[in-house]
Amino acid sequence: MVSLEKKIIAEGKIGEGDILKVDCFLNHQIDVNFLQEIGKEFYNLFGNCGVNKILTIEASGIGIACITAQFFNCPVVFAKKSKTINISGDVYVTRAYSYTHQCYFDVTVSREFLGPKDRVLIIDDFLAKGSALEALVALTNIAGCELVGAGIVIEKAYQGGGDAIRKKGIRVESLAKISSMSQKDGIKFI
Amino acid sequence: MVSLEKKIIAEGKIGEGDILKVDCFLNHQIDVNFLQEIGKEFYNLFGNCGVNKILTIEASGIGIACITAQFFNCPVVFAKKSKTINISGDVYVTRAYSYTHQCYFDVTVSREFLGPKDRVLIIDDFLAKGSALEALVALTNIAGCELVGAGIVIEKAYQGGGDAIRKKGIRVESLAKISSMSQKDGIKFI
Repeated sequence: MVSLEKKIIAEGKIGEGDILKVDCFLNHQIDVNFLQEIGKEFYNLFGNCGVNKILTIEASGIGIACITAQFFNCPVVFAKKSKTINISGDVYVTRAYSYTHQCYFDVTVSREFLGPKDRVLIIDDFLAKGSALEALVALTNIAGCELVGAGIVIEKAYQGGGDAIRKKGIRVESLAKISSMSQKDGIKFI
Repeated sequence: MVSLEKKIIAEGKIGEGDILKVDCFLNHQIDVNFLQEIGKEFYNLFGNCGVNKILTIEASGIGIACITAQFFNCPVVFAKKSKTINISGDVYVTRAYSYTHQCYFDVTVSREFLGPKDRVLIIDDFLAKGSALEALVALTNIAGCELVGAGIVIEKAYQGGGDAIRKKGIRVESLAKISSMSQKDGIKFI
């Protein structure tokens, strides 16, 4: 998505520790008009797949998922992150690793809101090593949903998480795929 | 907002500890079509106030804020919750108390995204004792913004947080105001 690549180059900042900061339009301040373009693009990719539910994870996936869901005319479910293990029986739970916070956390969804009748599209802002996406995929498996695929705004392709998940036969579509990133050479896309 | 009151009565559940669960349409599963009605109503209330930024707090405010922002044609900024005190100098920070988790947490916004040029509308899903809303109001004060008011989906009016903030001269508009709530007598609105 050319307009997204241009926006990342114009407004993104490369921070220490391989961080790409796009918090001016994607995950702190949110450019809602631009999210509409992103949502439309996800609809172009997955609009003919019979999606009846969009699954994302708090917090920064929620805005993108909600704007995108308007094109699919379906509800959003956002998985919750929790450090506690005090989980009641009415939720599906799986575990993910946060490379940012260097700890494991639980990812939960209420059983009420995911089940065998759901054709699920996963939406998230970032895909790097793939831990959060793998957790969401696991939740759809536990819940017995039909997983249509995953739509990601920005994939750090050089970290390999996306391709590892694609190798399992899951359709992963990323609107911008970064092949390399450094303060010296800037951001390169595939 | 009559359609919201009807939806709360039809789909909400009263849990122990004075909890109103509306996670089937508002804060776990999100009924995006219904959020559009809510966003339109906020626009009816605040559309002539020159709002150029919507401020909310993660996680459950984000979806409502993003859908609402489409009507105002402005960006969203969501404040972040953090238990750490390891805050760098480039953020505004204030503190709020979580009655659910019984602890204080920091509420932060990057200085980049709030300032004296902003005419801010605060949007959130719930208002009870008012701790989160007071923290957001404090952030707009620290940042020197013009605060237009706050749009709340559900106010537990009997907990008094909303009126305490109104007494400070801040316009708070809640689309459903609950006057009492119990499993025996159900939910009553003002």
